Amino acid sequence: MMSGYFSDDLTAAEIDALHAVIGPLTNDARALIDATVRTEVDDAAIAAAREHIAAATALLADKQLDGSFGVRFGRDGTKRAWGNAVMGAQNPIAAPVDMVFPDPDAQDQICWAEFDLGAAYEGPAGLVHGGMLAAILDQALGAAAEHAGAPGMTGTLTIRYRQGTKLGRVRVDAWLDRVEGVKSFAKGTISTADGICAEAEGVFILPRWAREASAAHLRSGVGDA
Amino acid sequence: MMSGYFSDDLTAAEIDALHAVIGPLTNDARALIDATVRTEVDDAAIAAAREHIAAATALLADKQLDGSFGVRFGRDGTKRAWGNAVMGAQNPIAAPVDMVFPDPDAQDQICWAEFDLGAAYEGPAGLVHGGMLAAILDQALGAAAEHAGAPGMTGTLTIRYRQGTKLGRVRVDAWLDRVEGVKSFAKGTISTADGICAEAEGVFILPRWAREASAAHLRSGVGDA
Repeated sequence: MMSGYFSDDLTAAEIDALHAVIGPLTNDARALIDATVRTEVDDAAIAAAREHIAAATALLADKQLDGSFGVRFGRDGTKRAWGNAVMGAQNPIAAPVDMVFPDPDAQDQICWAEFDLGAAYEGPAGLVHGGMLAAILDQALGAAAEHAGAPGMTGTLTIRYRQGTKLGRVRVDAWLDRVEGVKSFAKGTISTADGICAEAEGVFILPRWAREASAAHLRSGVGDA
Repeated sequence: MMSGYFSDDLTAAEIDALHAVIGPLTNDARALIDATVRTEVDDAAIAAAREHIAAATALLADKQLDGSFGVRFGRDGTKRAWGNAVMGAQNPIAAPVDMVFPDPDAQDQICWAEFDLGAAYEGPAGLVHGGMLAAILDQALGAAAEHAGAPGMTGTLTIRYRQGTKLGRVRVDAWLDRVEGVKSFAKGTISTADGICAEAEGVFILPRWAREASAAHLRSGVGDA
């Protein structure tokens, strides 16, 4: 199983080259998901499409990970969570949500992302699934806490839905509110052209095993230039 | 745009026939998502796979909905939310989570579902994304409230994460706890062989427009046998 936290020793240039191949593949798979949800073609066309999908799957599965992508660190310490269900560059389920940190050096800031949520993210008719918004907020709040130097796994997540979120262009904003011991409190919002649609507060806790793994990772020298 | 709430007047037999064609297509697309996340093939194989994916997408998009699937009612009133991001039979992003109601006639019961969450649902390495669990709980709690005759859109959702949820077989349980006016309070859990991993409470509110639309739907006679 490769689905842990590990260093694969890739250089920045190697990661860029890999991303240039994997990114378009993932986008193609996203387009297929959208087409699957919206298709109205007849049975013969569906049968023909299934043959192509099976052929693509066989090609991709010819050499594959035993498990999930995991979280990887390149030679310069760059973290890659390309399998992540919300922001993974190699995961067709992810919109993806790519958080922007306006000031890379500042810990006290609002980070954000804008992205399109199409037919595959539907809950109530014509609206984004509230649970998918919860997933995006969980990811965004966790990213804000991590970037501010207070990473953790989600302990508690509370979402308040103020109005329906129409399918289409969506924005998430997130920030670290405060830190109390091993707990980081982050907040965030989902908004569209209609204004704020949902608000979230999350408590992120760094579990003992993660603190120990992180310490071991640092001791091993992985991530040093 | 077809992405609303509407009746398409399909008979139960027509819906079954459609499901028999759409279900396997959606499962094939799920397999492709999994293969995309886990692939380690070379650039030439990825290029070949992309050609097949593009061909499948073109076939499916040849005739398609302007918007999302929406929520549809068949001739006998059967509700279909096949585009739903968590439980949609036509949505490759959905596991899917098919809730089981042990007693179709009882309102006071625990409903549940068991399903596999593979590499595409990853958050922390080897674990299910906490946000995806929130999405599943949102759907399950809402389904429990609806089945108990107290439907609504999510007002507030609170998730408490007790331990990491390993990728693999996962179970969700949900039930209606109580009703106060237009608010339904539902609860639920996520569990694996490791025990309970997350707990949720949700408040579901039937908004005015939905109450009016529902009343209009009933007045129109749609859904009557």
